[in-house]
Parts: sequence; structure tokens; C-alpha cells
Amino acid sequence: MTESLVTLTTDFGQGSSYVAALKGVLLGVNSQARLVDLAHNIPAQDLRYTAFFLRTAVPYFPPATLHVVVVDPGVGTARAILYVEVAGQRLLVPDNGCWTTLAADRDPERVIRLTEPRYWRPEVSATFHGRDIFAPSAGHLSLGLDPCLLGPAVTDWVRLELPVPALDGEALLGEVVFIDHFGNLLTNIPAEALSRWGGKSVTVKVGMETVTRRVRTYGEVEPGTLVALVSSMGTLEVAVSHGDAAARLHAAVGTPVEVRPATNPSAPSA
Amino acid sequence: MTESLVTLTTDFGQGSSYVAALKGVLLGVNSQARLVDLAHNIPAQDLRYTAFFLRTAVPYFPPATLHVVVVDPGVGTARAILYVEVAGQRLLVPDNGCWTTLAADRDPERVIRLTEPRYWRPEVSATFHGRDIFAPSAGHLSLGLDPCLLGPAVTDWVRLELPVPALDGEALLGEVVFIDHFGNLLTNIPAEALSRWGGKSVTVKVGMETVTRRVRTYGEVEPGTLVALVSSMGTLEVAVSHGDAAARLHAAVGTPVEVRPATNPSAPSA
Amino acid sequence: MTESLVTLTTDFGQGSSYVAALKGVLLGVNSQARLVDLAHNIPAQDLRYTAFFLRTAVPYFPPATLHVVVVDPGVGTARAILYVEVAGQRLLVPDNGCWTTLAADRDPERVIRLTEPRYWRPEVSATFHGRDIFAPSAGHLSLGLDPCLLGPAVTDWVRLELPVPALDGEALLGEVVFIDHFGNLLTNIPAEALSRWGGKSVTVKVGMETVTRRVRTYGEVEPGTLVALVSSMGTLEVAVSHGDAAARLHAAVGTPVEVRPATNPSAPSA
Repeated sequence: MTESLVTLTTDFGQGSSYVAALKGVLLGVNSQARLVDLAHNIPAQDLRYTAFFLRTAVPYFPPATLHVVVVDPGVGTARAILYVEVAGQRLLVPDNGCWTTLAADRDPERVIRLTEPRYWRPEVSATFHGRDIFAPSAGHLSLGLDPCLLGPAVTDWVRLELPVPALDGEALLGEVVFIDHFGNLLTNIPAEALSRWGGKSVTVKVGMETVTRRVRTYGEVEPGTLVALVSSMGTLEVAVSHGDAAARLHAAVGTPVEVRPATNPSAPSA
Repeated sequence: MTESLVTLTTDFGQGSSYVAALKGVLLGVNSQARLVDLAHNIPAQDLRYTAFFLRTAVPYFPPATLHVVVVDPGVGTARAILYVEVAGQRLLVPDNGCWTTLAADRDPERVIRLTEPRYWRPEVSATFHGRDIFAPSAGHLSLGLDPCLLGPAVTDWVRLELPVPALDGEALLGEVVFIDHFGNLLTNIPAEALSRWGGKSVTVKVGMETVTRRVRTYGEVEPGTLVALVSSMGTLEVAVSHGDAAARLHAAVGTPVEVRPATNPSAPSA
Repeated sequence: MTESLVTLTTDFGQGSSYVAALKGVLLGVNSQARLVDLAHNIPAQDLRYTAFFLRTAVPYFPPATLHVVVVDPGVGTARAILYVEVAGQRLLVPDNGCWTTLAADRDPERVIRLTEPRYWRPEVSATFHGRDIFAPSAGHLSLGLDPCLLGPAVTDWVRLELPVPALDGEALLGEVVFIDHFGNLLTNIPAEALSRWGGKSVTVKVGMETVTRRVRTYGEVEPGTLVALVSSMGTLEVAVSHGDAAARLHAAVGTPVEVRPATNPSAPSA
């Protein structure tokens, strides 16, 4: 019975009373719901961050887990709230595209627009749908409510496009898409790019800086070494062993990353 | 059975080992207790913040939820620890008034002073009653212990007075009482004040700055617009659409907020 | 049945998607596991901090609780992952010594090296063993798996030595080993040192500063007073009543602390 597992992801801030109120309302509908905090410190209203976060977290949960995601710059406007079944997971999300990169190439199994106020709090504020719509709807779903009762199925929704790497002659041009707590730079360049030129060495550049070592994991080189490796997401990652690559390279989300065949024999070999 | 739901609110710091120890002791008494973290980053020993936090969170929980609140500048002194039943909720709190604004105008159903060491850890430190008294008492209560066994009922306790807005001629003078994670300013001015002068427009001032737009929600105006709206608590809120009002207005908790009938036709209409 | 209680301690960062993925995998193996977040903001790769954290948290949990600890600078290298039974608790930890100070003087009941990939994710990344080895192994253990099946018992492991205070003539020389969220300084000097010279007064120095008051708890003196007291861990603590001793004394982990018999009658009496 994973139906009662409900994860929570918001940009309300760690320890926010908004999160507390959301939990209270949800447990008020289903006191047996099993809440799992994912994150409440998503950067405010940052949909790209949210999309990346969901992609690296949601797929690992057991099938039919319900993920409540309230990163919602459009709260109170005409934007829809959606119930989505995609890749075996279930989500309650604002219709802002933050979930669409979960689907990859396949269609979601079901998308429903929440229109049935019977499953909401009796008074719905204009600024806190997390408490007034998401939380009670999640409570009812976790009790086994048929999602069809929440509203009509829809076939159109906002899609979020994430940047994809581009080929430029011999080089593959991508960018930093996420910086983790350790300062490791996760890029949108698939790991295969490191070996796309067969046995030939490749050069990795982040901004103006060239990465000179290719490793399998952080701990196999001297602390402080700048390295390229395959991230736990299967993408190119740039890191400083026991250090902070973002600080060292002054890198941010969006910083260009380039992979090209090496001309210099001291470059990392793939 | 919501009796086993236990929420935790402390100023111990996110990820503090003090929180971990408290959870351990509580689960040691009742390993089936269902813990819900509300906040552990309450500003240190800030009773006004705690009172505001509890008011915006506790009422949403199912009846008989037990709320453990350890924001306790008087730990180890003669201050009492109380078990309180108020507005259908149950709390374990230091006797410092942080819960009294939950009661509004009505009396709490029951207030008991914890005096019975049988329900505490065998050795009680002078500085960590969260672990040594609150946690085991909460464990026993979540197992269904009759609260009468914790100690005697009392009829006197510390009350916390929160600032209330004052009428000054035609103006209503209040203040910022809370700043959320987005920088939105929550005030102690009831939403009705915005329409108290009938159909007439009102002017909202925060410190020296005049708010020039009245909206229903953030997303209905251009990003960066300074707006007044009704908060999710039913009070006057001042916000910057997709921005940070606290930073923009240099506002803090306690910053004066004034609502008065507009003399200028470009002011917001209620 | 405390077997299904699983605590989580990492340095992945509060709200990290790495924590979310770890929870997802664990619940994917045992959707009934009861997760308890201890801390996810352990300072990156700080093993001394982790050891102190575990010592002040783990012993309070009910017997047989499983503690998953992923502070792992050696991820992906040859370092082992261990299942440990010590002092009635169970842990999954990297073999970096962070758990060894839990054992004090006695031997752990059992230490097993994880070698059996049957209980891991099918593909194990080089950089995220938390998700790929710790989480699924914890899931299986929480379902009641016999730990013997995880791999062979071992009798050798990395030990972490924490600094111990030294006697220097009449003085006891220790250091600050932890600074809590309030800025209180926890030292490695046992509380008994305060009374080791019989009824004689002692002087406490932190760095160059002398502490002039001995108290039982913070609230019994004027706010702002610098005090020495017995911490909730039974060690010497230096604090500022309602203030931040670390900031006031410019103290850090490692700052020397000295206790010696007082020569000055205005010094604190033990």
C-alpha cells in the first residue's frame, strides 16, 4: 500500500509555517497519510530547478507514490492545478511545466485538471492554494479517492523546455544545469559524449577553464584536483576533489560547458 | 487515531543533534509515534515569532494532535512546563505564553503543570528539558496516557500580548508581524480594514513608502509591482510580485504600517 | 517493532535531491519503513562533526533502530561500507570511523562488510552509494533481512580518535569540540573536572578569555553574562545567557579550553 505515501516539495522555505499548515490540512483529511519531506527550500519560483529536482528524485519512489509539488508563481491566477500520472508516479502540480521533463519521450498516462471544490477547503484564499487545494486533494487521493472525481481529463498543458546540448563542429556545447551542496557542477551533457570520439581523448572546458583530469570518483585523486566524471545522473559532472568546483570556477547554472576532441596529449583521456 | 500524531517545533536549529536526541527519546517511549517536523529553525528564543508560527500552523491539524514546542529561554529555571488543551489541539509547551494567542477569546479546555517525574528521563539535565521532560512526556501522551497523571491542573499561566493595531483619527496604525521566506510582509491589520471606509479608497503605507496597487494575488500584475493584498491569514499583506518586499522596503518585524482613506485618486481602491 | 525505524544522517544538504532519491529507493524496497530525518546539513565530509553528532543522538533511540549515515568522502574508492551493531543500535556507515566513538570502551557486537550486490541497486554509480548501496540495504534490513546475508563479518575497521583533554600541572587542557546553534561551546572536558579540586574554586579559560560565572542553567543570570555550566552531555559548556558565546569569544571547534584551580577569589566556585 504505497498509496498513502505522500512526498512534499515546495519553495515555502525550510521551517515555514506554510509547510506546517499544508501538513496539518493534509493530515486533517487523512491522519494516516505518511508524509515524506523532499525539499522546502527550492529557490523561490524557480521552475527549472524544480524540474531538475523532480527528475533526480521522483523516479526512485515506489509506484503510485503521490508527489505534492507547490512551486507556484501563478498562484491565484487562472493557471490550472493538475493531477498527473506519469512514469508510474502520481503528482499534484501547478500547470507550469515543472513535471513535464519527467515524461521524457512518452506521454503521461493521465492528466486531470482540478475543478471540483468538494475536495478543497471550504474557503480558498487567493495566495495559498498549497493549503487550500493541494493539501486536501492530496489527503483525499491518499485515502484512495478516484482521481476522476477531481475534475476533467485534459490533453493540453504547459511544457517546460530544458536546454539541450548542441553540436558545434567537433565540439558539444552544453551548460551547467545544477550545482549541488558540495559545489559539484552537473551538466546537461550525457556521459556518452565523453566517449563519443571513440578511443580519442576529449577536452572539457567550463567557462574559460580547462579540466585536466578524468576520474571515476572524487576520492581517487589528491584533494583540490579539478576533475571531470560521470555524475550519478549519468551526465558529465565537473568537481573538485574534497572541494567546491562552483566557487573555484566561478560557475553558475547556465555557465557554458564544452566537450571536444583533445589536441593536447595532457588532456583527460575518455 | 490521531493521538499518535506528534508535531515538533523548536529553535534548536535545523539538523541539530538536540532535535535528534529529542526524537530518539520520544520514539524510545512510543516507537509507533508518528512525528511531524514543523520547524526547528525558529529564531532563537523568539517567543513572538513562535506565537505567530503556532497560530498559522496548529489550527489546521486534526483534533487531538499533540504539538511539542520547545522554544524555551527559561530552561532549567523555575518556569513551568505545561500540557494544554486549547481549541481542540493538545500542546506541551514551556510556560512562556507562546501558545496563548491560539486561544483567542476563549479559555483553554485544560492546562496541567508537569510535576510528575515518573514520566521524565531518570536524570533531568538543567539545560535540555526538551530531551529529558518534553520528549518522554510526549511519548507517554501519544500512547494514550491520561494527562491528569502528569501533574495538577493550573489556572494561571504566562500570557503573551501581541501588538494590536490602533485607530489614530482616520488612520489605522499597525505593524509588520511576520516576514515570510519570499519577503512578503504580513501585518496585524485585519483585511476588513481595507474596506472599513465603505467604498472609499484607502492608502497603505509601510514605513515611508506608499503602496500603490491593490490586488487579489501576486501573479496578476507585472513582476516587480509593489502590492497590497489579503494574506492567507486574512490580514493585510504587502508584497512585491515575484520579488522581495522586505528587501525593497527595508522592512522588518515591527515596521509601522498605516491604512487611511485615500486623498489621492491614484491610490488603490478597496 | 522498532526494526522498521530508520534514521537518516547525511552531508548532502538540506532539501538536496540526493536525500530525496535515497528516501525513494529505501521506500521502494520497504514502503512501510518509518524514516526519521536526523540531519542532512552535516558539514561536508566532516567526520569529527559526524562522530560528535552520532554520540549525542544515536544512544537515545530505541534498541535496534537502524541509523543510515552517509558522510562519505571516500565514496567509490576501496573504502568499505559497514553494517554495525553497537550499544544496542544498528548502523549502516562508511568505514571511516565516524561511528567508533559510540562504542566507548566496549567492542561492537557485530561488524559486517557489505559485499553482496544482490541487495544493492542493479547499477551502482561511482559517486552515489547512498542511493545505490546504503538505501536498498537499509530497506532490506528494515524488512527483517538477516544482516549476515549482506557480507562477511570483519574484525578490523577505521577508528576515529577524538581529542582528549590533557593534564598539565594543575591545569586540565581541553578544547571546544562542538558549537551548537545558539553559539554555546561544548568542550571535551568532563563535568567532574569542575569539582576535581575538591571544594576549591576553578578558573575556566576559553582562548584568552576567562569565564567568571558558574551556573546551573542559562536563565539564572542576567542576559549577556558569560557562564560555565554542565552541558546536557555531561561535559563543561561555556555559554552566554541569551547570547552567542562563539561570536563573543571568537571561538571555533579546536579553540583551547583550560580548567585550573582558582587563585583569584572572584573566579567561579565549583
